[in-house]
Amino acid sequence: MTTALATRIAREYGTPAVVVDMTRVERNIARIQAACDAAGVANRPHIKTHKSPLLARLQRDAGAAGITCQKLGEAEVMADGGLDDILISYNLLGDEKVRRLGALLARVDVTAAADNEVVVSGLPLAAELAGRPLPVVIECDTGRERAGVATPAEAVALAQAIAARQGLEFAGFLFYPTENGWPQAQRFFDDAAAGVRALGLTPRIVSTGGTPNLKNLGGLRGATEHRPGTYIYNDRMQVAAGVASWDDCALQVYATVVSRAAPDRGILDAGSKVLTADQGGLDGHGLILDHPGARIARLAEEHGFLDLSRCTERPAVGDVVRIVPNHVCVVVNMVDEVLMVRGDEIVGTLPVAARGRLR
Amino acid sequence: MTTALATRIAREYGTPAVVVDMTRVERNIARIQAACDAAGVANRPHIKTHKSPLLARLQRDAGAAGITCQKLGEAEVMADGGLDDILISYNLLGDEKVRRLGALLARVDVTAAADNEVVVSGLPLAAELAGRPLPVVIECDTGRERAGVATPAEAVALAQAIAARQGLEFAGFLFYPTENGWPQAQRFFDDAAAGVRALGLTPRIVSTGGTPNLKNLGGLRGATEHRPGTYIYNDRMQVAAGVASWDDCALQVYATVVSRAAPDRGILDAGSKVLTADQGGLDGHGLILDHPGARIARLAEEHGFLDLSRCTERPAVGDVVRIVPNHVCVVVNMVDEVLMVRGDEIVGTLPVAARGRLR
Repeated sequence: MTTALATRIAREYGTPAVVVDMTRVERNIARIQAACDAAGVANRPHIKTHKSPLLARLQRDAGAAGITCQKLGEAEVMADGGLDDILISYNLLGDEKVRRLGALLARVDVTAAADNEVVVSGLPLAAELAGRPLPVVIECDTGRERAGVATPAEAVALAQAIAARQGLEFAGFLFYPTENGWPQAQRFFDDAAAGVRALGLTPRIVSTGGTPNLKNLGGLRGATEHRPGTYIYNDRMQVAAGVASWDDCALQVYATVVSRAAPDRGILDAGSKVLTADQGGLDGHGLILDHPGARIARLAEEHGFLDLSRCTERPAVGDVVRIVPNHVCVVVNMVDEVLMVRGDEIVGTLPVAARGRLR
Repeated sequence: MTTALATRIAREYGTPAVVVDMTRVERNIARIQAACDAAGVANRPHIKTHKSPLLARLQRDAGAAGITCQKLGEAEVMADGGLDDILISYNLLGDEKVRRLGALLARVDVTAAADNEVVVSGLPLAAELAGRPLPVVIECDTGRERAGVATPAEAVALAQAIAARQGLEFAGFLFYPTENGWPQAQRFFDDAAAGVRALGLTPRIVSTGGTPNLKNLGGLRGATEHRPGTYIYNDRMQVAAGVASWDDCALQVYATVVSRAAPDRGILDAGSKVLTADQGGLDGHGLILDHPGARIARLAEEHGFLDLSRCTERPAVGDVVRIVPNHVCVVVNMVDEVLMVRGDEIVGTLPVAARGRLR
């Protein structure tokens, strides 16, 4: 059972292919922009998911206030592609990074993030090189235990350290609450905001993040913006989180069944070098839309191991199947380009321009 | 505690950086070539690990009989880079693949693999397009449950099907035994070899594979070649398998500690977009040579979560650490280039030319 589009993609492009339906992309962009508008928070989409200036411009043209990047190298690609308001939600430190940050700040609006004084102490050089102030938001940890200052008192002290530095502007607070951690984030923010106001500082930016957190959109009183990333494509994790339907999943991996070594088993030509080993806490490595009873049980680098024991209609060697991956952001980062379709039509290819920009 | 080389790499190149010591690369190439020579089997290194024609030529010049590729796209890059004897150890099927295989066969020596009749039925077109016979080896499964015919009888039947096809030459058998599965592979091979000989066919190529299987090198009577891949760089899995020492690990990921949000925690600027979520069955996501007591407990896309609770000397924000990854083959595939060093000297960059060649 292979769809007509899958047959065409296999014949004209080859598998495995990372395929994006642009109609769904546009719908996802519009839907979440409308949700942000309705919640009264600006949309600052995280481009780590698509890594494409073209798609970032679509997001901006639909109403996004700017974009978010995780790495400086991503931000440079986005600036090259015409994006001019960029938040880098990541501690940047070391001479090499700070000098590049300065060069970037000289040509576009950049906001940096920091959660410690070592990072803050390095940033003035960027402002000096750019000849303009660098706004800095403070990353706050409210339960995720990733980066971020751990207490409001630390946030206030760091705000003071930022404000005291030549060339730096204290710009506000960056949150990435867990899905259930919004009350905690509210308490953190209220205390930190009171603390910085007592110092005469104003948190101009109060940023929340995450596509699963779209269900909490506007849930932080005082928030000015949200940074969703995955929503442009969606994936199995977002469906599991209840923020997307299967029809909202704009990206699918097309793969060919290349072996049926035993009745209950099969092999796909898509392994960890395209689906990635990142399971996102789910069972298996993706949903096969054509055979929902099939399980992608494990992956070798170029092999997907199919468990067909619960599959009523089993795929044959040569069948081309469509997979919704567990975590789309890491899948996109495996390929230099995605294949764009609209419904059943192949539209063209789209470079993943910031792919692999780790630095 | 940051080494002088790490300081230089961070300053001149930036982190995270994938760094390869060419002196160790050359030593690994020579050591395994000597082991193959001593065992009386040809060396046909798998290039999936390095994806670099330059390194494949080093392997060939050291005595390798040819190379192995997993994907057709890798083989095309290798042929462009001057490699002219290529085994593609993967079922290739579909018109798009077969036509490209034909074009490749027209310019270099290619051996294809098959484990089923659907694949075999497609391959004659490649031979026809190339105007020369296509040798085909039969992939045999002896316990890994990946691809491969399941029994000697199936292997013999498939050999007969290959020999009956215009343009195809039955070339032999491809094995990838588990580390403890060599007696099983021997029985399979003996039966299959007797079966094809009874048909008047000769298994010219009898190929075994895997770097962990270097401990079994020459352990299959009748084997003509071995296909090790990871040995050129090695990694934590190879050390765990007992086939490499830490000094044999030629590839390290250099990463900066960007946050120390709590005394027992830290964040590296290397996450799943460079170390990958592939743990290879080990605990944590790599060994930090500078802090062996630190554990890379989990990964977000651009964050490595450090558990420092068992760490006597804890790294500071700004420190640059060296990580031996769990599984080097997937790490290499994340970057467009690696940084080459020799001891403490930076030599230059090396493109990962076949990176992302999935098709």
